[in-house]
Amino acid sequence: MGKTIAQKIIAAHLVSGEMTVGSDVGLRIDQTLTQDATGTMAYLEFEAMGVPRVKTEKSVAYIDHNTLQSGFENADDHRYIQTVARKHGIYFSRPGNGICHQLHLERFGAPGKTLIGSDSHTPTGGGIGMLAFGAGGMDVAVAMGGGEYHINMPSMTKVELLGQLSPWVSAKDVILAVLRTMSVKGGVGKIIEYAGEGVKTLTVPERATITNMGAELGATTSVFPSDEITRQFLKAQGREDQWVELQSDPDAEYDEVITIDLSALEPLAACPHSPDAVKPVAELSGMKIDQCCIGSCTNSSYLDMMRVAAILKGRTVHPEVSLTIGCGSKQVYQMLAQNGALADMISAGARILECACGPCIGMGQSPNSAGVSLRTFNRNFEGRSGTADAQVYLVSPETAAASAIAGVFTDPRTLGDYVKIDLPEQFLINDNLILPPIEEPLMETVDVVRGPNIKPLPIAGPLSDSVTGKAVLKVGDNITTDHIMPAGAKILPYRSNVPYLSQFCFAVCDKEFPERCKAEGGGMVIAGHNYGQGSSREHAALVPLYLGVKAVIAKSYARIHAANLANTGILPLQFADEGDYDRISQMDSLSLPDIKSELLSGNDVTLTDETTGQSFKLKAVLTPRQRDMVLVGGLLNYTKGENK
Amino acid sequence: MGKTIAQKIIAAHLVSGEMTVGSDVGLRIDQTLTQDATGTMAYLEFEAMGVPRVKTEKSVAYIDHNTLQSGFENADDHRYIQTVARKHGIYFSRPGNGICHQLHLERFGAPGKTLIGSDSHTPTGGGIGMLAFGAGGMDVAVAMGGGEYHINMPSMTKVELLGQLSPWVSAKDVILAVLRTMSVKGGVGKIIEYAGEGVKTLTVPERATITNMGAELGATTSVFPSDEITRQFLKAQGREDQWVELQSDPDAEYDEVITIDLSALEPLAACPHSPDAVKPVAELSGMKIDQCCIGSCTNSSYLDMMRVAAILKGRTVHPEVSLTIGCGSKQVYQMLAQNGALADMISAGARILECACGPCIGMGQSPNSAGVSLRTFNRNFEGRSGTADAQVYLVSPETAAASAIAGVFTDPRTLGDYVKIDLPEQFLINDNLILPPIEEPLMETVDVVRGPNIKPLPIAGPLSDSVTGKAVLKVGDNITTDHIMPAGAKILPYRSNVPYLSQFCFAVCDKEFPERCKAEGGGMVIAGHNYGQGSSREHAALVPLYLGVKAVIAKSYARIHAANLANTGILPLQFADEGDYDRISQMDSLSLPDIKSELLSGNDVTLTDETTGQSFKLKAVLTPRQRDMVLVGGLLNYTKGENK
Repeated sequence: MGKTIAQKIIAAHLVSGEMTVGSDVGLRIDQTLTQDATGTMAYLEFEAMGVPRVKTEKSVAYIDHNTLQSGFENADDHRYIQTVARKHGIYFSRPGNGICHQLHLERFGAPGKTLIGSDSHTPTGGGIGMLAFGAGGMDVAVAMGGGEYHINMPSMTKVELLGQLSPWVSAKDVILAVLRTMSVKGGVGKIIEYAGEGVKTLTVPERATITNMGAELGATTSVFPSDEITRQFLKAQGREDQWVELQSDPDAEYDEVITIDLSALEPLAACPHSPDAVKPVAELSGMKIDQCCIGSCTNSSYLDMMRVAAILKGRTVHPEVSLTIGCGSKQVYQMLAQNGALADMISAGARILECACGPCIGMGQSPNSAGVSLRTFNRNFEGRSGTADAQVYLVSPETAAASAIAGVFTDPRTLGDYVKIDLPEQFLINDNLILPPIEEPLMETVDVVRGPNIKPLPIAGPLSDSVTGKAVLKVGDNITTDHIMPAGAKILPYRSNVPYLSQFCFAVCDKEFPERCKAEGGGMVIAGHNYGQGSSREHAALVPLYLGVKAVIAKSYARIHAANLANTGILPLQFADEGDYDRISQMDSLSLPDIKSELLSGNDVTLTDETTGQSFKLKAVLTPRQRDMVLVGGLLNYTKGENK
Repeated sequence: MGKTIAQKIIAAHLVSGEMTVGSDVGLRIDQTLTQDATGTMAYLEFEAMGVPRVKTEKSVAYIDHNTLQSGFENADDHRYIQTVARKHGIYFSRPGNGICHQLHLERFGAPGKTLIGSDSHTPTGGGIGMLAFGAGGMDVAVAMGGGEYHINMPSMTKVELLGQLSPWVSAKDVILAVLRTMSVKGGVGKIIEYAGEGVKTLTVPERATITNMGAELGATTSVFPSDEITRQFLKAQGREDQWVELQSDPDAEYDEVITIDLSALEPLAACPHSPDAVKPVAELSGMKIDQCCIGSCTNSSYLDMMRVAAILKGRTVHPEVSLTIGCGSKQVYQMLAQNGALADMISAGARILECACGPCIGMGQSPNSAGVSLRTFNRNFEGRSGTADAQVYLVSPETAAASAIAGVFTDPRTLGDYVKIDLPEQFLINDNLILPPIEEPLMETVDVVRGPNIKPLPIAGPLSDSVTGKAVLKVGDNITTDHIMPAGAKILPYRSNVPYLSQFCFAVCDKEFPERCKAEGGGMVIAGHNYGQGSSREHAALVPLYLGVKAVIAKSYARIHAANLANTGILPLQFADEGDYDRISQMDSLSLPDIKSELLSGNDVTLTDETTGQSFKLKAVLTPRQRDMVLVGGLLNYTKGENK
C-alpha cells in the first residue's frame, strides 16, 4: 500500500511502536525550536538532563513573545536563553529578529525533516514539507537530548485543492474555508495533507499560513508536498541544497478527503469568538471597525507585507482606525525598508511594531472597549486581545488593509485592479541576529546567566523501596490544572520560577496548602474523578513536585496530566475500589510500603493508612515505559539514563 | 534698560502683574499641548469650564505615552482625547505620529510665541525661540479657555556658548556640561538663555535637545535666539512665514552668566542616578554594557537618527547588547525609510520601536537585572527604567550607537572619520496623522466618546454662606501628596477615573477614610505642619473634593498644594494658634458659620467646634485672586465666569 507524505516521514523517523492509527509511536526528531515564553522551562529541563550538547540536527531558541519588557523578568529570561543556548549547541535568534515560525521557515526548515517546537503553531513548518508538531517543554528538552517524541499515530485527512485563488483572495481564506468545513475540533487525532492541482498555485509562505492554522483545527499537524515551488523558495533563501521532493504515493489511502475549490473562494472572516465561526467578508461589509492588526506567525511574510503596502500606498488609515503592522522577520522588515514599501506603510499612518508576536498573544495593542478588531492572526478567543469585550475577527492581510483605509469591514475585491506580487528570486540573507552555539570543546567557558526570576527546576530522585507521607490535601472530582497551578497575568511572568509559583499551588482549593505541604516535608494528594483535566501545563506537576508531593491517589485521571505526573516522577495512582476514597481523611499518615518492588513487577500497588490501620488496593496509571521513568525519577532522568 | 529674549516675550504677553523677579505675572498663552498621560484630565477640566472652543492660536493633543496598550484603558483614553479635541477646536496627533515635543517643533512651534504643555519637557520649544513651559493639566485647561498662565517672574541666566563642537561631540554633551556646572537644582526660579557665537553653530533640533533638558536643571524654561538658522529650519518645514527674528538687546542684563566653550567639550555621560552626575565618556570607556536606547523627546530628530544610522551601517549590534531605536516623529521615520538609513539600522540588528516616548517613561524595554543601560533620554532616576537595580547612563546618540556596536562604553571619537550630516533643505511634510478640529458651527455633531475608565471630573459649586461638616480625618505633620493620593503602577492607568482613585485616598494613613468620608457626606481634614508636600499632582485635591472634603485646616502648607486646593475650590485654612490643633478631635462636628462674608472682606476666618463648643481663629491661605476663585468654586468656574 502506498504512503501519504506524513506516513513517509514518520516511517523514516520511527524508533518505536507501530504505525497503526491510535497506537503510540516514538519518533526521532531532527530539529527543535522554542520561543521565550515556554523556552526557559524547556532549557531548565534540558539542563537537568545533564546532556552536554543537543543531539538534534538543528535546535533553535527564538525570542518573540515577551518583547515588551515591562519589567526586568523578560530581559533576564532572554539572557538566560542566550547563554544556555550558546553553551549546549543551540542556535539563538536575538530579540528583534522575528517570529519563530516565520524565521524557521526562512532559515532552517527543510522538507522531510521532523520538527517539534514548544509552541502550538509549530505546524507552520508543514508549508515547506516538514512534519512539525507543537509540544510541551519537556518533550522538546527530551528531543534535544536525543530522546524520542511520542504521539498516537494519527489518521490521515486529504484536503484536495482545486483551481486557483481569484485576485484579492488569499491563503488565509483557504484555511478559514477549511475551518468552516471541519470546525475547531475537526482535526483532532488527524494529520491534514494538502494535495491537488491547487497546491501548485500556492507559494511556500502561503502554504505555511494554511498549515499554521491547522492548529486551530485541533490537528496533530498539517503538511504540504515538497515540489518545484518548495525548491524555488529554498533557492531564494540560499538553501536549495536542502530541498528534497516529497509527494504522497498515488495509491496512498486517506481516512477522509475534503475538497476545496480555490477558484470559488471569496474573502472570509472568522467571527467572534472562534476561528471556525466563518462568514464571507461581503456579508460583514460596512460594519464599523476600530482596529486592524497585521502580522503574527500566520500572516507576516514578505508576500503578505508587500500586498498590504500596495494597498496602503498613497492612502491614509481611516481616522477612527488604529492599524498596526509587524513583520515576521528582520529579513522581511529590511527588504521592505529597502524597497520603499515600509515608507509607504509609514506614510499611510500604520503603526509599525517590532518583529515579534505582539498583539496576537495579547502583548500590547489591546483594542478600545467593545472595539471591533480585524486581525490577520490565528486565534480570536474571548479576551485574548487584552480587552474583555473586544470583538475580534480573523481575516486576510488584504481584507485588513482594505478595511483599515475604509474604516468599515471591506471586501478587498472592491479595491479594483489587482497587482500580482511575486516572491523575489533572491531573499536578502543576513543571519547576523542568529548566534551560533560555541564549539563543544569550549562549552565550559560559557557561564549560563540566571536572573533572580530564574530558579532551578525541581527534579525527583529514583523511587525509594517505600514511600510514606501525610495526605496533605484531599480534594473532590474534576480538579483542573488551573486549580493545581493557576495562570493569569499576575503569575505568568514567573514561569521560570517554580518556588515563586508554588505559593499559588492549589490556592483556589485551600490557601494554606503550600505552607502545610512544605511543613510536612511533602506527602500525597487524595482526589476524586477526572483529576488534572484542562490545560496540559507541565507546571501542574512540577510545582507539586517542588512542594514535596510524592504521589497522587485519585478515582480517575485526565490522560495528559497523568502522563505529566509520570514525566516529573510523581506517582499517579488510582483506587481499585472507588469507595476507599471515603475511608481516607486529610492528614492521615499514609504509606506505600513495597512500591518499588510492586512497580518492578506490574501496576498493582498497596496503600496503608497508618492512622486508621486500613489497607487499600491501588493501580499505578503507568505504561511500562512510564513505570521505568518513575523508577528513575521521571522522564528527564530516564532520558539521561538512556543516553549513558 | 535692554531686555533679554524671555523678557521680550513675557512683556509681549503680560496680562497682569509686574516683571520684577519673584512677583506673580499672568501671561497670555498662544499655544498649548498635551500628551495622553496627562491629557485626559486636562480635557475633562476643559470640558468642565464649559468653553465651547479653545481661545488659543493653536492647541494640540498628542498621543505618545501610553502606546503599549496592555489593556483597554489606553485605547479608550486615546479615543476620548480624539473626540474631545475634534469637538472643541484642538488639533489631534494620532498614535504613531510621534513624540509631542519633536512634533510640535516640526509642525507648530514658532519663535516669539508662548506655549504651555502638560509635560515637563515642554521647554523643548525654546530651541525654536518660543517661551515654553511645562504646566499642570488645569493650567493648560485654563489657558485653552483663554485664561492667563501665572508664574513667578524668573531671574535671567545667560549661557554663553563659545567656539563650535568637535566631531563626535553633540548637543547632548552641551546640556550635560551645563548640568555638570549648574546641578539639578541650579535652574530653579530661572530662565536660561543661550547666547554667543556658538549658538550659530547649532541647528534647531540641537538647540531643542539643550532646552529640553533645561527641565533637569529645574529651570522655569530655556530659550535660544531666533536667527537665520531658525528661519532655515522653518523653511525646510514649509513654515518660513512663521519666522520672526528674536535676539536679546545688547544691553540686556542677566542675573547670572555661565560660559561654555563648545570646542573644549568631549562626549559626556550622566551617571546613575542623576542627570547632573556627569563624567567624560572616556573615563567610563571599556565598562561592559547591556542595553542602549536611542530616541525620546531629547534625541530623536532626523539629525540624531542619521548620525546613528551612519555609525550602524555595515556593522552588527554586539551580541550581548540590546539596542532599541525610536524615531521622534513619522516625518523622521518615513525619511529614514526612504533614504535607506532605516534599512541600515535594521540590518545592524537594532530593535525599532514605534515613534513614541517608549522606554524613557518606563513603557517597556526594561533592562535586565542590574543591567547597564545607555540612554539618549533626559532622566536616569533610580527605577525609572522599570528595573529597580538598573544602572542608567544618559549619553548622546553617537555614544550610544558606538557603545552598542562595541559592547562596552565607547567614546565615539574612537570611531575615526566623522561624516558631517546636515539638515535637509526640505523635510518630508505629510500631516495626514494630524486631524484638524471640526468647524465651530458643527461642533454639536461630535459625540465625545468616554470609555468605562473615563469618569466625570468632580467640580465644586459656589461657596455657601456657611460650611459645616465633621473632622473626617485628623493627621500629623508632613503629609505628602503621596499620602493623600498614592501613585504607582496599580493606580496610574486610572488617572481619568477619580471615583476609582478615591478608593485609595489617604489609604496609607487610614484605610477606612474613603468609606467614612463618603458616609459622612464629606467634611474637613485637620492636619499639622507642611501639609501637601511632595509632588504637585492635582489629584491630591481633586480626589478629596470628590469625596466631599470642603476645607483643610492645617498648621502650615506646602505652597503648591495650597494653590491646588484653591484651584479645585477646597478651602485651605491655617490655625492662627497652632495649639488649637490639639483641641480638635477626629469626628468632632465643625462649622465655619460666616465663611463667605469673612472671605469677602479678607482672610480672617472663625471655626466653631460644635462638639466641644469652642471657637478658633483661622487664616485663609489665599491671594485675593484665589479668594475670588474659592468663592465661585475653584479655578475652572472662575475662568468660566471671566469668559462670560
